[in-house]
Parts: sequence; C-alpha cells; structure tokens
Amino acid sequence: MTKVLIDCDPGIDDALALALAAGTSLPLAGITTVGGNVGLGLTTANALALREFLDLGDVPVVAGCSGAIIRGPIDAAEVHGTSGIGDVVLPPATRPVHEGHAVDFIIETLKASPGEITLVATGPLTNIALAVRREPRVAEWVRDFVIMGGSYTRGNTNPAAEFNILTDPEAAAIVFGAGWTVTMVGLDVTLQALVTAPILDEMRGLGRLSELLVPACQYYGVVTADGGPALHDAVALAHVLDPSLLTLTPAAVDVETAGVHTAGMTVVDFRLRGRSPNALVATGVDVAGFWKLMLGAYRRLGERLG
Amino acid sequence: MTKVLIDCDPGIDDALALALAAGTSLPLAGITTVGGNVGLGLTTANALALREFLDLGDVPVVAGCSGAIIRGPIDAAEVHGTSGIGDVVLPPATRPVHEGHAVDFIIETLKASPGEITLVATGPLTNIALAVRREPRVAEWVRDFVIMGGSYTRGNTNPAAEFNILTDPEAAAIVFGAGWTVTMVGLDVTLQALVTAPILDEMRGLGRLSELLVPACQYYGVVTADGGPALHDAVALAHVLDPSLLTLTPAAVDVETAGVHTAGMTVVDFRLRGRSPNALVATGVDVAGFWKLMLGAYRRLGERLG
Amino acid sequence: MTKVLIDCDPGIDDALALALAAGTSLPLAGITTVGGNVGLGLTTANALALREFLDLGDVPVVAGCSGAIIRGPIDAAEVHGTSGIGDVVLPPATRPVHEGHAVDFIIETLKASPGEITLVATGPLTNIALAVRREPRVAEWVRDFVIMGGSYTRGNTNPAAEFNILTDPEAAAIVFGAGWTVTMVGLDVTLQALVTAPILDEMRGLGRLSELLVPACQYYGVVTADGGPALHDAVALAHVLDPSLLTLTPAAVDVETAGVHTAGMTVVDFRLRGRSPNALVATGVDVAGFWKLMLGAYRRLGERLG
Amino acid sequence: MTKVLIDCDPGIDDALALALAAGTSLPLAGITTVGGNVGLGLTTANALALREFLDLGDVPVVAGCSGAIIRGPIDAAEVHGTSGIGDVVLPPATRPVHEGHAVDFIIETLKASPGEITLVATGPLTNIALAVRREPRVAEWVRDFVIMGGSYTRGNTNPAAEFNILTDPEAAAIVFGAGWTVTMVGLDVTLQALVTAPILDEMRGLGRLSELLVPACQYYGVVTADGGPALHDAVALAHVLDPSLLTLTPAAVDVETAGVHTAGMTVVDFRLRGRSPNALVATGVDVAGFWKLMLGAYRRLGERLG
Repeated sequence: MTKVLIDCDPGIDDALALALAAGTSLPLAGITTVGGNVGLGLTTANALALREFLDLGDVPVVAGCSGAIIRGPIDAAEVHGTSGIGDVVLPPATRPVHEGHAVDFIIETLKASPGEITLVATGPLTNIALAVRREPRVAEWVRDFVIMGGSYTRGNTNPAAEFNILTDPEAAAIVFGAGWTVTMVGLDVTLQALVTAPILDEMRGLGRLSELLVPACQYYGVVTADGGPALHDAVALAHVLDPSLLTLTPAAVDVETAGVHTAGMTVVDFRLRGRSPNALVATGVDVAGFWKLMLGAYRRLGERLG
Repeated sequence: MTKVLIDCDPGIDDALALALAAGTSLPLAGITTVGGNVGLGLTTANALALREFLDLGDVPVVAGCSGAIIRGPIDAAEVHGTSGIGDVVLPPATRPVHEGHAVDFIIETLKASPGEITLVATGPLTNIALAVRREPRVAEWVRDFVIMGGSYTRGNTNPAAEFNILTDPEAAAIVFGAGWTVTMVGLDVTLQALVTAPILDEMRGLGRLSELLVPACQYYGVVTADGGPALHDAVALAHVLDPSLLTLTPAAVDVETAGVHTAGMTVVDFRLRGRSPNALVATGVDVAGFWKLMLGAYRRLGERLG
Repeated sequence: MTKVLIDCDPGIDDALALALAAGTSLPLAGITTVGGNVGLGLTTANALALREFLDLGDVPVVAGCSGAIIRGPIDAAEVHGTSGIGDVVLPPATRPVHEGHAVDFIIETLKASPGEITLVATGPLTNIALAVRREPRVAEWVRDFVIMGGSYTRGNTNPAAEFNILTDPEAAAIVFGAGWTVTMVGLDVTLQALVTAPILDEMRGLGRLSELLVPACQYYGVVTADGGPALHDAVALAHVLDPSLLTLTPAAVDVETAGVHTAGMTVVDFRLRGRSPNALVATGVDVAGFWKLMLGAYRRLGERLG
Repeated sequence: MTKVLIDCDPGIDDALALALAAGTSLPLAGITTVGGNVGLGLTTANALALREFLDLGDVPVVAGCSGAIIRGPIDAAEVHGTSGIGDVVLPPATRPVHEGHAVDFIIETLKASPGEITLVATGPLTNIALAVRREPRVAEWVRDFVIMGGSYTRGNTNPAAEFNILTDPEAAAIVFGAGWTVTMVGLDVTLQALVTAPILDEMRGLGRLSELLVPACQYYGVVTADGGPALHDAVALAHVLDPSLLTLTPAAVDVETAGVHTAGMTVVDFRLRGRSPNALVATGVDVAGFWKLMLGAYRRLGERLG
C-alpha cells in the first residue's frame, strides 16, 4: 500500500504539514529529521513531540544529518523561534527516537517497498542526497519524490535562494541530478497560500490543536485581512494528498553551487533547450482547494484530539 | 542644457529607441556604440545609417568596444537578424563615424558638462565600465544614468540572466559598483510593454518611417492581438523623456560573475539589509502612457520624414 | 591493538601498497574500496583478488561509493590499465566481498575501537567524507588519519590538482574540515621515490610476487636508470609502518572547489596566518629508507608466497 | 630603434629595476604607472622622483589606473613601506607627470613604432589589460612583452598567488588571452636571485646611489650570508637586457579568476595538451650572470651620479 516518508526539519510549517498528515490519516512510512530551520537536536525533539501531540501513532522518527554536506549552518531561529515552532511549548515526547540513521532508514524503507513509497522532503536535502549517493537505486525505488524548496522567480533568505536549498546547495544539486523526477513545490506557489485572518479564525476553536496552530501561525508572520505567513511545507504535502491542487510544468532544473550571490538558487529552465526535464515544477496552485483540504483535515484532527 | 548620451548596440529595439529620440527631438550629446546584439562593425554601421534615416542631425556617432571585458561573445543574430535590425535594409550612411573611441568620448563629454548629461545605456555595459574605470569621476559628472538591462525575476537569454548583462557581467559588476545610482530598466517592466497588433497598426501609414518600424517589429517577435515583442531599449529612453512612466524602487543590486548557471544575473535586494541602495529598479510601468509617448513621437517623426 | 583500515581504489600503486602491508604483516582492520582509478566494480574485484594473491588472510573487503559526491568521474584507465592494475591478470577471488557499505564499515570499525585504528586513504576521499558527515565522531575515534593525495607545489592530472583530490574535491574539502589532523602525503614527496631500474631489478626473482610487481611497475611508467614511476600510495602506508621516513610540517590546508582551473587543488599554507593547522604535510622523504622498507617487505612476502 | 616601455608600480624592486635601466642606458619609450604595491599617487610620485634621482633624462612618466579592473586593493605597504620604497626619502621631483592616461600612452606608443617597442610590466596588469581591450592590435604592435608576475609552483601573497597577478586577476586573464606570447618571469626564478650579504656589500660605496640601494634592500628583507630579499622586477628587466640569463619554456597559462582560495593563480601547463602556448615561462636563471649584469650597471650608474 502507498505510504509517505517525510524528511523534515520542524520548523513551524513542517509542524503544520504533519498536522495535515495527521488530520487526513495519511499512512506514514516514517519521519526522518535533518538539521535546518533549527539544529538536528531540536528538529528531532519536535518531531517526537509532534508525533505524540498529533496522535501520529507509532510511525518511526529517525534522526539524520545535523548539517549540510559541505557548508556551515544558516540560522533560521529568528523565523521559527529558538524551539523551532515559535513560542509553542509542546509536552515533551515520552517515546524515544528510532535507532539508526535517517539515511539508512530512507534507503531501507524504499528498498523494502519499491514503487510504493512517496518521499516528501520539507527541509534541506542533506539526508536525501546522502541516501541517493550511498544507494543510487533509491531514485528507482521511490514512487514519487516531492520537495518543498526553491523557486523559479525569487528567493526568500536572499534575493536568489530559498532557505531549504540555500542551506545545502550541494545536496540539492545531487538530488536534482539523481535521475528521478523531482516535484518541486517552490516559493512561487507557496507564497500564494497565505494564512490570512479568515483562515486563522478557522483554526481557532479546534480545542487542543488550536493551541499549536494559532500561535505557530502568528509567530510565523503578521496575519492581516488578506495577507499572512505561507505554510510552505504543507503545500508540498497537500500535493501528495490531492494532485489536482498544483499545476506542474516540466523543467530542467540546475542548482547553482558556485555563485557568490546566487549559491543555492534553483535555476529553472522551462524551455529545456534539448535537455530532458528532471523536475515537475509547481507553477500554479488552487488556493481555495488547498485551504479546503487543510481546514477539513484540521477540523477532523481537532475533534479527534479533543 | 540637459542632453542625452546614448550608448547602444543597434539592434532592433535600439533602433526603435533612437526613433523615439528623433520623434521627440531629444537633444543628444552623442551616440556611442558597443558590440552586443551584433558585432561592433554592424552596430556602428547601423547607428550611422539610423542617424541619417531618422534625421538625427549631426550628433556624433562614436565606436567603442568590440567585445566584453573578459568573456567571449554571445551571438544574438537570430534575434536581431544578421544586419542587426531584422531584415530591414537602410540606405548606407553617407557621413562617417566620429574619430576616437567611445570610452574617451563618454569621459570627455561628461567632463565637459558636469551635471548636465544623462547617460542611457541600451547594450552591454563594456564602454561604460571602461569609462568609469579609467575616470571614476564620470560617476559624479553624470546627471542621471539609466540602463536597459537585468531583471529581478527571470532572465531571457537563460533563466537567470538578461542578454545585455550576460554579455558582459564583469562590466555590469563594475558599473553597479561605481558609486552612482543606476536606474535599472529590466525585463520585469519591458516585458509588459508589448507591440500588439493594435500597436503595430498604429505604426503603419507613417510613410518612410513605417518601412523601418513595421518589419523590424515583425522580425522581433510574433505580433498577436494581445501579445508581441517587447521594445526593451525604448522603455529606458522613454523614462528619460517622462519619468512618470516607471515606478522606481531603491535596491542593492549585485551582478553575479562567478556562478556556473547564474553568471550575468542581476541579484536585486529590495530589503537592502543595511546596505545603501546603488540602484533604482523599475518595478512598474504605465503601459498606456508608454505607448502614447511612443506613438505620438513616431507620428511626428513620420510626418517629418515624409 | 593498533590496526590499519585501508580505504583504496586499486589501482597499481594501491596494489603495491597492499603488498607492503602483506610483507610487513601489518594488522589490518579492513579494506574498503571506492571508485577512482577505475570504477568501483573493478577496484573491489581487484581488492578481493589481491587479498587472496597477497595472502592477506580474512581481512574484510567492503565496497563503498562508486563515484564522487557531486562531480562526474575522471577516467584514469590509461594510467592504471582497464583492469586497474596494468596488464596483470590475477586469479579471480574465490571469497566474497563483505556485506554492507564501506561508509558504515568505517564508522563501525572506528567506533568499536576508539583511539586504536589508523585510517589510511589512498583513493578519492568519498567514503571518508560521507563517514565523517554521517558520524562526525569518526574524527575523534581515529588513532591517526593518513592520505595519499594533493600537493603543495603542482598537480599531476592537471597543473593544479592531484588525481585523488581532483576526483572528489568536495569530499576532500569535507575531510580536511572534519576537525582531525590529516597527514597528507602528496606528490611533493611521492614523486621523489621512483621505481628506477635498480629497484625494479630487486623486484625480480621474488617468485610469484614478481609476476605482480614487475609488470605493474612497468605498466605504470618508463623505468630508467634513475627514473621511473612513483608508487604514491605505498609511501602513505610506509609512513604508518615507519614514521621516521617522512618529514611532516604543520599547515592549514584548504581544498579549492570553486576554481575553473584549480578545482581539486590542495592549497597548503605553512604560514598558518592565525589559523590552527588541520594537516601535517609531508615535506621530505628518506628515499633510501623507503625502499629499504619496501624491498625488505617484498622479499619476505615473496618467500612466503613461493 | 628598439626601446622599452616600462609599466610599473614603484615599489622597491621596481625602483631597483629602474636603476638597472639607468645603469645600462637602456633606451626607454616611457614609464607608465599603476596602483599596486602602493597607491597610484605614490607609485607615480616615486616614478617621477626616480626619473630625476637616477638621471633617466626626459623619458615621459604617465599615470594610469589607480585600482584593479574589478576587485578592491590589496595593501602591500608593509612590504614596500608607506612611501613605496621602504624608508628611503628621495628628493621630490621637480618635473611634472606627462599629460594623459597610461592606457592611451601605451596604445599610442606601440602604434607609432610597430615591432619596435618591448613592453615590460612589473606591476598589476591593469593598464596593459585595458590597453589590449581598447586596442587589440597592441598585441601585434609590440616587439616583445615581458612581465614580472605569477609562478608555476607557489605564490607569495598567499599559497596560490603572486602579488601582481592577485592584485588584478581579471586583468591578468585578459593579458594572457590577448593573442601575444607573454614572457612570464615568475617567483620560480626571481626567488633564486637574492640580495645576500656579499651582494649588499657590493652595493655599498657607490656614492649617492648606495643611499637608495642599500636601505631599500634592507627594508625589503633580512639580508644574511646566503639569503635575502628577491629583486623580482629587476629580473624581468634583466631578461630584456640579456636574454641568455633566463631559461624560457613554452606553456599554456590560465589565470584563475573564480577560485575561493586560488583566484590570481597562474595555472601553468607545460604539457600544453593540444593547446598552443600563450607564454614563455622562465624556468631557470643564471644567478651569477644576473648579479654580474646588475652590479656592473649599478657601478656605472654610481660613478655617473657621484
């Protein structure tokens, strides 16, 4: 049966993506963690705490790489709070992290069920890159591979680069060159699906779940009548749940690793110029449909959690 | 009295920008040429032929650099035709090119009238870069400096870079770092002002002038009811004639010179992050106003040329 | 008890280094293989065949990465022959490769005996880099870490870079930045210890062993009275056996990964300029002592092998 | 008649090269200055003062570029003293700098006497690069072109790069790609010709000239029985006076402009690998012959100056 393996760095929007998974009872093959929005210790602790808070069952949580393949870390604590999920304090996890390393877990999980697992990466691509470098057949075994990352217009951490790709450009270059088709959900679409005041209102009154959702969103950005933070990672996961939400366009994507001002930029060529596409790039999003999916899932989860 | 010095590489859109200058009787301090859209021999021959065809008087035409400071040439003949202005054949010039070199001419012209000359560059920035490197005070002497080049979203020659900047990234890096404020008219706005079928219809029936305008535009791109080629260079010159047409936003602009996939990209940071702006970047354009200015000028010029 | 773990890509000089290990009965913790001089399939097959031919006992041979972390392969078949050890044909191995992956084997072996294992890398540093990235404590657990690679003067594959480093510059950059002290045995010393005609004569008459040594050396380079090929990898292993052979100088070593003409260069700064040394760089070699060690070992092994 | 045009940045070793020219009555077509060892103001003032102190007649001194084409300055004041010639204080010049710019002067001088002028550059190559970019035929008009710069082993300012090339790598890249054959006199040979104590003793007792030579050399480095500073620039000029002093080897030379640790490195390929040589690289020097030439010239000049 089709399952999803989520490689993430929670992170506010990772947390809200996991809540989407919980609310839709999406079958999960595992949650692997990577250093990114905050350090690996916190992303793993957050994943463990969220597994229990969101009632995600006994899905394994496996820790992976603490830093980029080559480069030093970029601090995003100002965006995600020093805990990684704003100023939300979740009850600490009571169950432990899975033994072993995320890179091995990814390889073994995909190997055990070739063609059945969809891999969704919502953090820096370090774990994925080391997995495909260790075992190139990962690219064949995967059912589908979806990332939140990059953009074909402008970045966010700097004018050229999006945070996840910028954090480990070499990993992203490996991943885009691994022979599979990367479904790239970038800022171009995620910045269209904003938590506006009406959306935030819908997130209230969901009992305990609201205690995560509402302050996390408010920490993440200023919510106004028609503006607010973008839940980037949730858009990538939403695509897995409902492929009709995004318009995907084939493209040849290179990741710049050498530029002084542009390292970490995804250079997206829709014209292909004789190359085969290595990516399907999200170029449109059904914003209303996205929020319908999200809020429906959050409502169901809110009822379940009480 | 305020005059304009145009550094260009005609080039279809350069030609149509010069026609705008002719139609508005814009006082010109000189026309300097640079290799770019086509080689220096052709851009200079075209500038000379256009000076006579457009009745631009005795404005000096001065030849400059034949290639980029460091890099080899990029061939744009497929865009501009082997002559540089599509398949238009102008009568050959009867009057000669001005003696001397464009770099010297730029320096001397600005030095002779400090604070009075607006410099408009519509080709690669090689001449301008060598001028500011030879004589840094050029940046103080200029009244205003406007370029057609770059973008803050996507390129045209490749996904990252616009043609003029890509042709000589090092020159652009020098120019943006020269201490003046560059008014950057990039693809973000020029691609909004298209020669649609109704616009092209207006260009017909202007006598001899139509014989340049209409085939040049048709060569430059497919004209449809609501689409068509963009007259990039003319937008930059239009801004000099009517500063109300463009919305300008201060920004810190870097030019990538090291990237494998991104060399020649203008990296435009509107957030500044503690830096002083070195550019005013065009972020909006009054399309109707632009065409009103253009077509009015073309009509007046058409009458004059018969 | 101190053991040596050899990460290699046999390769002619790797083979002759393994023969040195066999002749000195050096206790080996394992032989891991990496793609480099020839592809991983051949380097692993050669390691397996050499284990039996050289009577290396039951030391595990473990296969690792088939290619560099980011870059494509460099073909060195013209140097090492299509088999990897010139035109020598060894009897195929009868015992199989160890299960698992070299990266895991390196991590687990060092973890199991902290402070006891000396790691010697004679190929591209891909396995080592992925090991320290996966488990940074490898750098603490190792007793000593010695590489054949780099140079502080000139390269061999190109003017700037030595083959092993050039094959995976990013891996080398990771390895030199991993927090341990790299003993770097580069071309500066290995090119002093040449297989001259008198040396080659000593390699004759050693029975079956000569059938490997002599043609391998002859394939590797033209042997003359005072010149011949350099057995690079054997010098690194010789240092482990007799630390008095090399003069080591502390240095701060950077690996260039961005240069157009210099990627893969080890930039060796002996002046340190305020940095702590991350390497001990071989700056002198006792050539006579090296050959005494080598030929003594080869003689003993020759007698043993018959 | 053959003349030499010296482009320099005095600079201690430039000064001692000019003294060599004076002592041999080498016909000079001009002295152009560039910012480098110290700023352009000082290098020009020093050139003017040296012209009079060394009795160089009415050779024109022409000021050129104050900084590199793209990069910011590297301060070498600690090497050359804040005045540029150690702590030597020369009488200020009484005659003025030549009008115009060094780049124009170089172009015009070579154009006026095609095939007759040898160009010797002992500073950063900024002026030369802008000259060949402005007027590519400079490369045809020159009789011979000799630089002090680069190395094929190691740098001096950092492990990879020599000061003159590092100061303006892009200029050097232009110059080595200009179509002529660059005679490259690099650190590989200049570091062999040292001002040892016996040499310094010979420089004493030459009257007024000693007042320049001795303290300049002492400022430049510690003089011992068999060691001392290298008079880099003088070796390049000595080659013009006596081509038998240097062994020259054809090579294909690239200048790295993109490396993080290696920008400004001259990458010298003696194997050519199918390329045509663009340089003759000095690979050997007759040290005794060099000093015989130097000291003979200094003696003659010392007598002349009194």
